[in-house]
Amino acid sequence: MKVRVGINGYGTIGKRVACAVAAQDDMELIGVTKTRPSYEARLASAEGHPLYVAQQEQAAAFEKDGLKVEGTLEDLLSRVDIIVDATPGGVGEIYKDLYEKAGVKAIFQGGEEHGLAGVSFNAYANYKEAWGAKFARVVSCNTTGLVRTLFPLDKIIGIEKVSATIVRRGADPGDSKGSALNSLEPSLKLPTHHGPDVQTIMPWIGITTMAVKTPTTLMHMHCIIADLKKETKERDVLDVWNNVPRVRMVSGKHGIRGTANIMDYAKDLNRKRGDFMEIAVWQDGVRVVGNTLYYYQAVHQESDVVPENIDCIRAMMKLEPDAMRSIQKTDKSLGIGK
Amino acid sequence: MKVRVGINGYGTIGKRVACAVAAQDDMELIGVTKTRPSYEARLASAEGHPLYVAQQEQAAAFEKDGLKVEGTLEDLLSRVDIIVDATPGGVGEIYKDLYEKAGVKAIFQGGEEHGLAGVSFNAYANYKEAWGAKFARVVSCNTTGLVRTLFPLDKIIGIEKVSATIVRRGADPGDSKGSALNSLEPSLKLPTHHGPDVQTIMPWIGITTMAVKTPTTLMHMHCIIADLKKETKERDVLDVWNNVPRVRMVSGKHGIRGTANIMDYAKDLNRKRGDFMEIAVWQDGVRVVGNTLYYYQAVHQESDVVPENIDCIRAMMKLEPDAMRSIQKTDKSLGIGK
Amino acid sequence: MKVRVGINGYGTIGKRVACAVAAQDDMELIGVTKTRPSYEARLASAEGHPLYVAQQEQAAAFEKDGLKVEGTLEDLLSRVDIIVDATPGGVGEIYKDLYEKAGVKAIFQGGEEHGLAGVSFNAYANYKEAWGAKFARVVSCNTTGLVRTLFPLDKIIGIEKVSATIVRRGADPGDSKGSALNSLEPSLKLPTHHGPDVQTIMPWIGITTMAVKTPTTLMHMHCIIADLKKETKERDVLDVWNNVPRVRMVSGKHGIRGTANIMDYAKDLNRKRGDFMEIAVWQDGVRVVGNTLYYYQAVHQESDVVPENIDCIRAMMKLEPDAMRSIQKTDKSLGIGK
Amino acid sequence: MKVRVGINGYGTIGKRVACAVAAQDDMELIGVTKTRPSYEARLASAEGHPLYVAQQEQAAAFEKDGLKVEGTLEDLLSRVDIIVDATPGGVGEIYKDLYEKAGVKAIFQGGEEHGLAGVSFNAYANYKEAWGAKFARVVSCNTTGLVRTLFPLDKIIGIEKVSATIVRRGADPGDSKGSALNSLEPSLKLPTHHGPDVQTIMPWIGITTMAVKTPTTLMHMHCIIADLKKETKERDVLDVWNNVPRVRMVSGKHGIRGTANIMDYAKDLNRKRGDFMEIAVWQDGVRVVGNTLYYYQAVHQESDVVPENIDCIRAMMKLEPDAMRSIQKTDKSLGIGK
Repeated sequence: MKVRVGINGYGTIGKRVACAVAAQDDMELIGVTKTRPSYEARLASAEGHPLYVAQQEQAAAFEKDGLKVEGTLEDLLSRVDIIVDATPGGVGEIYKDLYEKAGVKAIFQGGEEHGLAGVSFNAYANYKEAWGAKFARVVSCNTTGLVRTLFPLDKIIGIEKVSATIVRRGADPGDSKGSALNSLEPSLKLPTHHGPDVQTIMPWIGITTMAVKTPTTLMHMHCIIADLKKETKERDVLDVWNNVPRVRMVSGKHGIRGTANIMDYAKDLNRKRGDFMEIAVWQDGVRVVGNTLYYYQAVHQESDVVPENIDCIRAMMKLEPDAMRSIQKTDKSLGIGK
Repeated sequence: MKVRVGINGYGTIGKRVACAVAAQDDMELIGVTKTRPSYEARLASAEGHPLYVAQQEQAAAFEKDGLKVEGTLEDLLSRVDIIVDATPGGVGEIYKDLYEKAGVKAIFQGGEEHGLAGVSFNAYANYKEAWGAKFARVVSCNTTGLVRTLFPLDKIIGIEKVSATIVRRGADPGDSKGSALNSLEPSLKLPTHHGPDVQTIMPWIGITTMAVKTPTTLMHMHCIIADLKKETKERDVLDVWNNVPRVRMVSGKHGIRGTANIMDYAKDLNRKRGDFMEIAVWQDGVRVVGNTLYYYQAVHQESDVVPENIDCIRAMMKLEPDAMRSIQKTDKSLGIGK
Repeated sequence: MKVRVGINGYGTIGKRVACAVAAQDDMELIGVTKTRPSYEARLASAEGHPLYVAQQEQAAAFEKDGLKVEGTLEDLLSRVDIIVDATPGGVGEIYKDLYEKAGVKAIFQGGEEHGLAGVSFNAYANYKEAWGAKFARVVSCNTTGLVRTLFPLDKIIGIEKVSATIVRRGADPGDSKGSALNSLEPSLKLPTHHGPDVQTIMPWIGITTMAVKTPTTLMHMHCIIADLKKETKERDVLDVWNNVPRVRMVSGKHGIRGTANIMDYAKDLNRKRGDFMEIAVWQDGVRVVGNTLYYYQAVHQESDVVPENIDCIRAMMKLEPDAMRSIQKTDKSLGIGK
Repeated sequence: MKVRVGINGYGTIGKRVACAVAAQDDMELIGVTKTRPSYEARLASAEGHPLYVAQQEQAAAFEKDGLKVEGTLEDLLSRVDIIVDATPGGVGEIYKDLYEKAGVKAIFQGGEEHGLAGVSFNAYANYKEAWGAKFARVVSCNTTGLVRTLFPLDKIIGIEKVSATIVRRGADPGDSKGSALNSLEPSLKLPTHHGPDVQTIMPWIGITTMAVKTPTTLMHMHCIIADLKKETKERDVLDVWNNVPRVRMVSGKHGIRGTANIMDYAKDLNRKRGDFMEIAVWQDGVRVVGNTLYYYQAVHQESDVVPENIDCIRAMMKLEPDAMRSIQKTDKSLGIGK
């Protein structure tokens, strides 16, 4: 029998997780919640995702626009085994009691505090920690990106300590709030929260981070400096990443000069929404000097956590005991591959 | 027997036309040319599109990168009935003799002069003019956009004259030349070429245009003022566009505030590369005051001409005598629809 | 005796008007209000502008930062003859009663409704309408720009009707709210408010406007199409503008390709803050076809209304009966000139 | 007698150095060279800077535009003691022989190689190295920025090693070449040239750098991590910078959130062209954890090297033996100060 999944919040992350759940043979998408009859609500409907409203009083606006509403969030909770909370950052906390009362498991996103769920999740790094858990939290896009390359590097070569500068995109493509239009804005509270967030998954790692916001919309860029535990060749580092899932090499020599080219490339790859769910590492931007490794990676903030949510469902619902088997199943269903 | 099609130039337009040709049941994609083994060449290869080089001496670089080359442009020309020239603007002119010598028909893009082909093409407006033609030219993205909404408006309601301001995207998403980063740049040669270019298809129409370049990458925006031949209601204008192909209404009320939202919406529609091949008209931005109609439309410069190229092949190769039947066949194959 | 002037609100417009008032020999800047001890408050202090707070309870924060506060807005009102309200759009309305109660005249900015003041002001077009007025409103940056070129054109050549597309900057340089980062956003409510606002000064003119917001910060760009009452040569149009104040020709041939170049040019002119208070018209972008005139102009949204505020004070305070003499006095003091 | 100075190249740097030379009481600006009669040439003329052309044949175009030409570069060289080469990067090398032949000293900019001049210059760090030199090179904007904060830090507290990520502006404000419009582009050649360039002035320092280009125009942002030789308090670090020239603290608490706010602030400071010639360090973005110091600084690429050029002239011409006295004299003349 398939696991019944609901999605609370059908925005940038929610709509992607919904499609990903619908693509799994061991899961069934029962419904998604939406608060307004926006074009995204219409698309949910067109995709065949049953629509629920957060509050009963929102239903009228949907019906006026000819969109069928299946019930409220409470109705949805009564019909699912697990809910993926994809509400805006900090809102998930408010819903936790409701999920608990309804007796459903819940996955929160990286906008919530680690403490809310108790388990912070990355499929390759700590799949087992979410095994059978009632609550878990899939870490943010940036943390997912850092863990994807640092965890295997630490496991195989060994990391002494890490410094990373996060050159952030200012807003998502369709977001009209934006950042300043022609400005570079530093995150003044130092070190930024990204380092401690990596430590929710790799508590032993020494890592400090800085961050600057830029007026772009496509991807975050990480400039990473890692002091390794031993002398290493660039080739060895590339070997590590070539053998782990969800890390993909790109090359300036082949015309991938920046984040815009990666997004163009992703469109050509013909995946749903043109998403690039892997972390993109520039192979000609990897350099080792002595024990110190320098590299650049780009993170598609809209999608890299999507496959992690799927694996997290599998771990929490005890669908597949082997992490790599879950990862491979997810990746195959979403068209992710080397 | 299927018409054998080649593509000369596998860039923004060429790669899209190649995929569109491959999706037709009355056409066969024989091959595409590429000058360098870039990531796009790799994708052509991965998509199963046979690779040719423009010049023999380019082949070595491809082979060094493990990419199979089927021959030169001349070899490709000897194997096709028709070639789609998708080389950069002004370059098509150089190749015309070669196409003629090889005895293949050729479609040029809007970057070439009207005189080069003698026929300028828009499927809905003048399909028959390309019937059996040796050469034709699919007009540019902006001209295609203007003709798509103005031609039916003129046919059904009647247009006295048109003024349009083209608010241009500065560069394509993956293009690193770009325009000035934080500047608005007017096209000082007035009126701009867009008006006369519309007249290559609608020679009777009075139209003048201005243009401003902006530092964005997604779509062009047209601000159009049309003096109509009679008093009209907004509803009547919307009716016209609701009944013609490749025009699609969008709405600010549903959250489509600008070009970034259209591109997000297109991704959700799950089309190849997230392309939006229709012209997007804001239905809540259509206004008639007296005899004067005001409206905004957005043009996806990377893709709106793609279905026109397919129909143009059908007209030149006499595959389908009825314009609307060709259009519908093309649109169905590409997932375009109301 | 000098007219005593206060400024309520020391932001983008307020700080510029304050400096301009301080540069006049017939005015005295009594003080400016500020709500927070920001870097702009420090600069006011450094410039020698006495600081007042809007509310008494705000004073503590200033004093904590070592900034001397001279009193509250009410104290300021008791010490001035006229107040320039440079508070955010719509806020001036709230203060009107307070100004009236204090018996001081007040100038509002273009963010307020015409009805609030009863008189909408442009120095060249209708100086006399503000003569001795209790309240007046200096129209917005865009309206000021349109009136500066259209009013003399209508007076000397005659205008039948005007269509204008306003290609807007998305936010001011230091503003972090911004517009969408990589999007073009149309103003869907048509015609936009710009046309009716021009009519508060030129009620006889037929004008309709459209507008598109772009992710730039420097200047607005106007694309204007004017049907003239008679056939005219481009030279005659240029003559008109060469003989009116606060319109300045720029040229693509001399390297002024867009708004960024104008701003660079303004810096080189060595004016306070690098402001460009004139309307910039591209002389090589002026074109007449038959009776129709096309032209591009750029508007520095931060500063073009500044000299208008000075002249408005002079008219309301009956300091100078002749408009042109006031304009010339103002322009000389601010370094504006042909 | 005043030192006679010429400027070869009147672009972004050249025009600023010209004004700075003209503001010194121990120097005389003999002339500047320009290749085209652009608006900048007009301004040079309006500022009273005598105009020379690089090649005789360029003179006609100037005269046609009514601009007086005083002679060629060779004529200029025959009239000066020292020439500041502000030609585009890599071009200075071509001119060196000409300068040598004419027997004039020459200052090159950071776009040239260290080896061309033999001496790389920063006024505070190594004024004496340029004493009486025939050739010297003022290091680039970014290197100047790094040396300004690192040199005193190393001298007073001691630096073990430095890692810096340079978040670069993509193009200057008036530059229309630009970088990609909506992309982040890493410098793949690692470590970038910035580190070795710092070592031309501080050869003993261990420093490695990475860089990312962003679509902004205003300033570069440096994210710096310095391992210090001893435990230090943030207050001690701020003390170091508060006591050296050309470093200025800014504060997010006072509303300076990013580079756009610094540029706004600079305009308010009422300096020539709104330039910010100091390095801006965020005082609330300075953090020490153990022995490791983190800080952000912003560099105004158009102007930070301007005062360095003035001091370099003084050292090479033996006008002032004391570095600090030269720096103070320069800063006073340009309005730079704490």
